[in-house]
Amino acid sequence: MNLYDPARIPRSTIPENQEFPMLALSSWVTPENKFYIRNHFPYPVLPTNDWKLSIVGFVQHPIHLNYQALFQYPQITLPVTMECSGNKRTYFQPKTRGVQWEQGAVSHAIWTGVSLRTLLQAAGISPNAREVIFEGMDTGERTDLPGTFRFARSLPIEKSMHPDTLIALYMNGKPLPYKHGYPARLIVPNWYGMASVKWLYRIVATDQEFKGPFQEKDYVVYRSEADTKRRPVTLMKVNAAISQPTDQTIMRRGMHIITGTAWSGHGFVKKVEISLDRGKSWSLVRWLDPEEKYSWRRWGWDWHVPVPGTYHIMVKATDDKDNTQPLQAEWNVNGYENNSMPQIQIYVE
Amino acid sequence: MNLYDPARIPRSTIPENQEFPMLALSSWVTPENKFYIRNHFPYPVLPTNDWKLSIVGFVQHPIHLNYQALFQYPQITLPVTMECSGNKRTYFQPKTRGVQWEQGAVSHAIWTGVSLRTLLQAAGISPNAREVIFEGMDTGERTDLPGTFRFARSLPIEKSMHPDTLIALYMNGKPLPYKHGYPARLIVPNWYGMASVKWLYRIVATDQEFKGPFQEKDYVVYRSEADTKRRPVTLMKVNAAISQPTDQTIMRRGMHIITGTAWSGHGFVKKVEISLDRGKSWSLVRWLDPEEKYSWRRWGWDWHVPVPGTYHIMVKATDDKDNTQPLQAEWNVNGYENNSMPQIQIYVE
Repeated sequence: MNLYDPARIPRSTIPENQEFPMLALSSWVTPENKFYIRNHFPYPVLPTNDWKLSIVGFVQHPIHLNYQALFQYPQITLPVTMECSGNKRTYFQPKTRGVQWEQGAVSHAIWTGVSLRTLLQAAGISPNAREVIFEGMDTGERTDLPGTFRFARSLPIEKSMHPDTLIALYMNGKPLPYKHGYPARLIVPNWYGMASVKWLYRIVATDQEFKGPFQEKDYVVYRSEADTKRRPVTLMKVNAAISQPTDQTIMRRGMHIITGTAWSGHGFVKKVEISLDRGKSWSLVRWLDPEEKYSWRRWGWDWHVPVPGTYHIMVKATDDKDNTQPLQAEWNVNGYENNSMPQIQIYVE
Repeated sequence: MNLYDPARIPRSTIPENQEFPMLALSSWVTPENKFYIRNHFPYPVLPTNDWKLSIVGFVQHPIHLNYQALFQYPQITLPVTMECSGNKRTYFQPKTRGVQWEQGAVSHAIWTGVSLRTLLQAAGISPNAREVIFEGMDTGERTDLPGTFRFARSLPIEKSMHPDTLIALYMNGKPLPYKHGYPARLIVPNWYGMASVKWLYRIVATDQEFKGPFQEKDYVVYRSEADTKRRPVTLMKVNAAISQPTDQTIMRRGMHIITGTAWSGHGFVKKVEISLDRGKSWSLVRWLDPEEKYSWRRWGWDWHVPVPGTYHIMVKATDDKDNTQPLQAEWNVNGYENNSMPQIQIYVE
C-alpha cells in the first residue's frame, strides 16, 4: 500500500455506501477497492455451492446456469464508467434527502462476462417480452413500505438485447469482488448505476411493465410531490469532476496542473473546457485518455499563475451529441442527476 | 477487517490529510488506523539507527537521548482527545482557505510516554526559560515564504512543565505508528492538535518568544487582514459531533438512537443537550463514557418518533466551566476553532 493511497469515503455504514476518492484519481481504471459502493440493503448471504442464475418468464425454455456454465458462453470485455444517479446530491440547494454524495459516486472499471442477449437467446426469449427484470440477492426493509424487499430493477427489451449489456463475472481481470456483486452482476453501459443489479440470481422476461419500488418509487425524477411530469432515471447525463486541486487550496505562484475526468451516457465526451472568469471565456483541456464508447476521459490543463490572488475555476464537459453541463442542475425531490459544472476556489500566494 | 468498517476520509493527498469517519464512531478509543491525520509536509524520512531526541538551549546540560534511553524514565499513560483547529472548517460561510475538514478532524487515543517535565528537569531547565520549542523531522515548502521549513511549534514554559504534557512513545499500547509521529511525538492535552508536534528530534528551551511561521502566521485567529486583535490558537473550545444518523437520512417511524461525542479543552463535558425545535427546548442525553479529564465523552439519546415528518436536530455541549457551543462559530480568516452546534435534518416516513 502506497503511503499516500487514500481509501474510499464512507457515506453510510449499514447499508454500506462509500465513494471513490476523486482527489486521488490516478488511473483510467478504478481499482476494485476504490470503486464506489452503493447499496440499498445489508450485504446478502451468498449460497455456498448451489448458486444458479435463472432465466425465466417469457422464454421458451427457462434455464438455470451455475457459475461454471456461464463461462461456456463467449466472454466479452468492456471498459464501462458507472455513476450513481445520486452523485453530487449534496450540492443541491435546498438539500435533498438520501445519501449525501459528493462527486465520487462514479468510477470506471473493465468488466468481463456474457452478453445478456446471448443468455436471453439461449432461453428462447419470447417476441412478446417487453421488459426484463433483474433480481439481486440483497434484501431488506424500506422506510416507506411494510415488509421485506429484494433489490430488483427492469430494463426495456431493447436495452436488454443490446450486445453490450453484460452479465459480468469479472472486474478488472479478476472474479467480481463480493462487494461488487459476486458471483454475477448486470452491467448496463451508459445508464446510471442503479440499473447494474449486483448479486444476480434471477432474470425474468415479462410482457408487463415492472412495478417494483426501486423502479416506480425510487429513481424517478420529479420536482414536487404534485409534479405530474415524472420520468425514470436512465442514461447518465454529461458530467465532470475536478480531482486536483481540491476546493479552497492554497498554492504557490507558478505552474500547476488542473486534472479531472468527464463522462456521458449519451456518447463520448468530445470537449472539456475551463473558465477562470466565471464562464466568460473558456479554454480547452488536453486529454489524458482516448475517446472510448463507455468510458470517462481524464483530462489535464496546465495553469500558469504568475499573479497572487483568489481564483475561481469552472469546468464544463460537452459530449458528441452536444449535451453540455449546466451551471446548476435541475433540482428534483430525490436529488438525482446532478451534473452541474464543477467549481473550485484557489488561493495563490 | 469488518465488512462495514470504513476507513479515514481523505482531504488531501500530499501532504496527507485524512479525517476520522465520525459516522463510524464505535469505541471510546480511536484505533490508530482511524485516528485523523493532519500533516503540513510530506512524511519525513526517518534516520535508520541514530535517532536521538535532543534537549538543548536554556538548559544546564543539554541531553541527547536515544529511543531506548527514553524508556529509562517513568512512563505515564493518558487518554487524550486531539482536535485539529481546522476541524469543521468547511461549515464556515463564506468558506475559508485550507483543508476542508468536516467534523472528523478529532480523535481520541491512549498515549504513553515520558512527562516532558521530567526530561526538562533532567537537562536542568533554566529559570530564565520562557518557552520550549519543539522541532519535528518533517520539512517542506510553504506557499507564502521562500525556502524550506521544518514544522516547529513552541509552548509556554508553564504548559511545558505541566506533568501531563507528554513525550509520547506509545499510542493505544503499541509503539507510535509512523504516520502518528514515530519514534516520539509531543502530546499537549487540552490544546488543539497543532501543538502536539510529531516526529520530534529537538526540543529547545528559550528565553525568547518563538517566531516560526507555524506559530506566528498560522494558528492565529483574526477576522480580517486589518484585524489588530489577533490571538493564537491554544485550548480546544467545547465542541460536539453527531455520529449517527447522518444528515438527510430517511428513517422509519419508531425508536432510534442518536449518538455522538463531545469534548472541551477547558475541562470535561458536563452536559450535552438535544433540541428538536430549533433550540426552543432541550433534552439531556445519556452518557456512554464516564467523565475523564482530557477525553471526549460519547453520548446517546433515545428518539421515539411516532409521526412521519421532517425533523431538525441540534446538539449543544457544555463543559464544567460553563462554556457552551454557539449556534454559529465566529468566522475568522483561516477558519479555526469552529465549534458551532451540530445540526442534521432527518426524514421519517
